[in-house]
Amino acid sequence: MAAGANLVIDGDRLVSRLNALAQIGATPDGGVRRLAFSAEDKQGRDWLVAEMRAVGLTVEIDRIGNIFGTLPAGEGAPVMSGSHIDTVATGGRYDGALGVIAALEAAQVLKESGVALTRPFTVAAFSNEEGARFQPDMMGSCVHAGVLSLDAAFAARDAAGMSVGQEIAAHACAGEMEPGTIRPHAFVELHIEQGPILDAEGRGFGIVEGVQGIRWFELTLTGEPNHAGTTPLSYRRDAGLVAARIIAFARETALSIEGTVATAGRIVFEPGQVNVVPGRALFTLDLRNPDDSRLDEVERRVMAFAREAAAAERVEMVVRKLARFPAVAFDADVIAALDRSARSFGHEPRRMVSGAGHDAQIMAGIAPAAMVFVPSVKGLSHNPAEFTADEDLIAGANVLLRAVLRLAQA
Amino acid sequence: MAAGANLVIDGDRLVSRLNALAQIGATPDGGVRRLAFSAEDKQGRDWLVAEMRAVGLTVEIDRIGNIFGTLPAGEGAPVMSGSHIDTVATGGRYDGALGVIAALEAAQVLKESGVALTRPFTVAAFSNEEGARFQPDMMGSCVHAGVLSLDAAFAARDAAGMSVGQEIAAHACAGEMEPGTIRPHAFVELHIEQGPILDAEGRGFGIVEGVQGIRWFELTLTGEPNHAGTTPLSYRRDAGLVAARIIAFARETALSIEGTVATAGRIVFEPGQVNVVPGRALFTLDLRNPDDSRLDEVERRVMAFAREAAAAERVEMVVRKLARFPAVAFDADVIAALDRSARSFGHEPRRMVSGAGHDAQIMAGIAPAAMVFVPSVKGLSHNPAEFTADEDLIAGANVLLRAVLRLAQA
Repeated sequence: MAAGANLVIDGDRLVSRLNALAQIGATPDGGVRRLAFSAEDKQGRDWLVAEMRAVGLTVEIDRIGNIFGTLPAGEGAPVMSGSHIDTVATGGRYDGALGVIAALEAAQVLKESGVALTRPFTVAAFSNEEGARFQPDMMGSCVHAGVLSLDAAFAARDAAGMSVGQEIAAHACAGEMEPGTIRPHAFVELHIEQGPILDAEGRGFGIVEGVQGIRWFELTLTGEPNHAGTTPLSYRRDAGLVAARIIAFARETALSIEGTVATAGRIVFEPGQVNVVPGRALFTLDLRNPDDSRLDEVERRVMAFAREAAAAERVEMVVRKLARFPAVAFDADVIAALDRSARSFGHEPRRMVSGAGHDAQIMAGIAPAAMVFVPSVKGLSHNPAEFTADEDLIAGANVLLRAVLRLAQA
Repeated sequence: MAAGANLVIDGDRLVSRLNALAQIGATPDGGVRRLAFSAEDKQGRDWLVAEMRAVGLTVEIDRIGNIFGTLPAGEGAPVMSGSHIDTVATGGRYDGALGVIAALEAAQVLKESGVALTRPFTVAAFSNEEGARFQPDMMGSCVHAGVLSLDAAFAARDAAGMSVGQEIAAHACAGEMEPGTIRPHAFVELHIEQGPILDAEGRGFGIVEGVQGIRWFELTLTGEPNHAGTTPLSYRRDAGLVAARIIAFARETALSIEGTVATAGRIVFEPGQVNVVPGRALFTLDLRNPDDSRLDEVERRVMAFAREAAAAERVEMVVRKLARFPAVAFDADVIAALDRSARSFGHEPRRMVSGAGHDAQIMAGIAPAAMVFVPSVKGLSHNPAEFTADEDLIAGANVLLRAVLRLAQA
């Protein structure tokens, strides 16, 4: 058995730190509002840096405000684990915070145990993962990974016209380190699922093999508004009907291509009267699949059907691409480290993919990466009612700890 | 050949009267705004009564403002023809006005020709056919036919809270006659089609065999709003998807049951975000068929499918009936009179059904009735651009004239 193979985290300490952080920006309904680069975010940052220093980590902060606390050990690039501490406007206590505090707990256990590591271990808290106030989301990890320039990040403005650069300066969120300086050997992130699967299956955690590719479209269909009584079917150019057919087809396509989800979340018919054939229909499509080639096929089939359905009704169609994120397949070795860690606790781990975006998918661009999920009761997230039981928080943090240990001893 | 069988209307006089009436409430875009019981409607009424008197008709006005101008002849119940002179807020020159003025023209030709009739002929202008300001529509003919009480009609209020009773009094639209006093032997109405069929087929007119039954529904589907990325298809309760499936199915059903039209004119998804599965969807369905038993079958199939589609997605469905008008089959003898009239001009008449509501369908409840339609260019109606060529107006009025003659000589 490798040194430290029986280590476990201190569950009380983990939960206690989560509670402490949840007080910063706490809302009366039990939720948290700690928007990126706000005064509350700054308070959270200061608390985190103090905790890191108390544990004995070496703290470095880069120019976009990403915080790194390193446990020096061995040589070479560190194993890194972390997440974010910013929240959406009506956020919960676990989204992001869990991943940072569990990594901090792992660092403390590793340090206190005195177990020999061949590499340093770095706890990371990335800026503005949520993108609730300043887009894009995953801003800090994107800047760290070099897929977003610091200038572009600083130039992002909120609805009131305030820029990231201004807010970072106003709340002293930034440090001196150039982004991307700490290039990890491997990255691993613990996060709540933000979906219903683990809760519904009664599982304590899942190992995340990848993040879905995401494509958002807005389809505008233009036909002709006509009298609903006097216009025979063969004369109609019913934009609403075409929209309905495409939405129904998107679900059929999702069912037929493994791993796909398809959602039409927003729709408008014009003129929108009970007795007028819709002359115009606008709706959104959100298509996701963990495999980009499958997602290509989903998009190809849905858009081919949409063109045919529009042509059959003599309706014009304009497709606007609103967003496009490639799928990420996590690293087999990091997944294996998580898998062996889970089995060391006697668990048969469930494999899953993430439907939501996370810092780990950005870090996967510069380092081997993977994730662990713990359940969100009823799948609730971005919601003050977001909840994960303490035993699940602790189980997830333990899986993270032993995986970090394996990676830092490799 | 029967006496008067070669009579024709005076086309110039018909068009000239249409132009004169179109000046009353004329709008700058070439349209007409003559809302029921308004000052403009009153001006139109006064103009019509003066024209009727100039022709030599005996004018009677009932308590809901229906205007009747009778050419005395023979004995018994009169043949009646007419329509309405009120318009929607952004109306055209022909909808309603044509049917009244063509009937007046027929009366004038019959009178001037001195042809012997066995029955009187009455020209009718019914109040508030449009229902644009005060509901229900077809108010005057409904009161005349006894399907709406005078009290209920008087109590109807517009959006500003003004009642029909107040407006009728304010603009002196009413007379002393009790509604329903003049019970016709037969009723025939000339109207523009308000649909595209005759224009598309290049036909000058069509004989209307009936009016579609109309059923309006509002369906509210309640599922669960969920994350579009993290919620697997099998966990979804996607109210929007169910709405789309029902709308697509309604068209399939309409195609499979002869004479059906189905329209979903209005739709809302909630919360209406691109990345949230719709937790709620609300939409309207407008189903029509000229045959009530077929319409029963359409409704049965669509609602059975809707229940199944909702249950399959674990979505709750509430169906509200917004409106329900039975189909009307026009009278075979009146249709035959129109048919022979058309053939006397060398036409092979097209038979059709009306998708819109007309006074004739209400009058059909108390007398044998039928209609003639003339083309609406591009199917436009309730629109300032509503247009019918003079030659079509004249052809329609001629068919009306000779049908009235046949009915009044029978």
